[in-house]
Amino acid sequence: MTPFADLPAPPYYAVMFSSSRRDGDGDDGYAAAADRMVELAREQPGFLGVESTRGADGFGITVSYWESEEAIRAWRLHAEHAATREQGRARWYAHFEIRIAKVERAYGWDMAGGHRRE
Amino acid sequence: MTPFADLPAPPYYAVMFSSSRRDGDGDDGYAAAADRMVELAREQPGFLGVESTRGADGFGITVSYWESEEAIRAWRLHAEHAATREQGRARWYAHFEIRIAKVERAYGWDMAGGHRRE
Repeated sequence: MTPFADLPAPPYYAVMFSSSRRDGDGDDGYAAAADRMVELAREQPGFLGVESTRGADGFGITVSYWESEEAIRAWRLHAEHAATREQGRARWYAHFEIRIAKVERAYGWDMAGGHRRE
Repeated sequence: MTPFADLPAPPYYAVMFSSSRRDGDGDDGYAAAADRMVELAREQPGFLGVESTRGADGFGITVSYWESEEAIRAWRLHAEHAATREQGRARWYAHFEIRIAKVERAYGWDMAGGHRRE
């Protein structure tokens, strides 16, 4: 499966979540919870896509894309999401930063297909 | 060194660069070029910070932060940056997506220090 989100033309909104995992805690339920949050996000109104990666040093970036600020607000208030965020602070993360942004321009390139602009 | 960018309060601008490396090409000068681009970006007017990570599957996300759209435009036109982007298409990347966004809100959390809002 491609790791790239298949998004409509801008404008849309992005939630950029940068995080560092705690040292030496092993998985401790993290991978299952992360998978579940992506599954749950996909079911939310206004969800457009998500891209996520984490390096061997434990630092990761996840960007989720949404149709509107209202959709982001509703996802933030989702009860299961809120409960999992609480677990994230209690068990998995050492530090995180969240930035909410309006995407104004986007373009892509593929070695097979060349450039694409939106 | 912390992988987190130390940013001012919003608003500011973000360039989100998602990419997949080609299979089986080894490093081929990539790491040195990536380090050089970060070094060069830090010298540009309006540069605020950068966060970057890549997983074992070759998919990576780099987000650079800028004071203004003008600063992003100038960085895009920088000759050495443009030459390295050309190498990226010719040698290192299979696919990339770039999204340019205006960051409107930001907050963070640290297990030592708790919440911070901006």
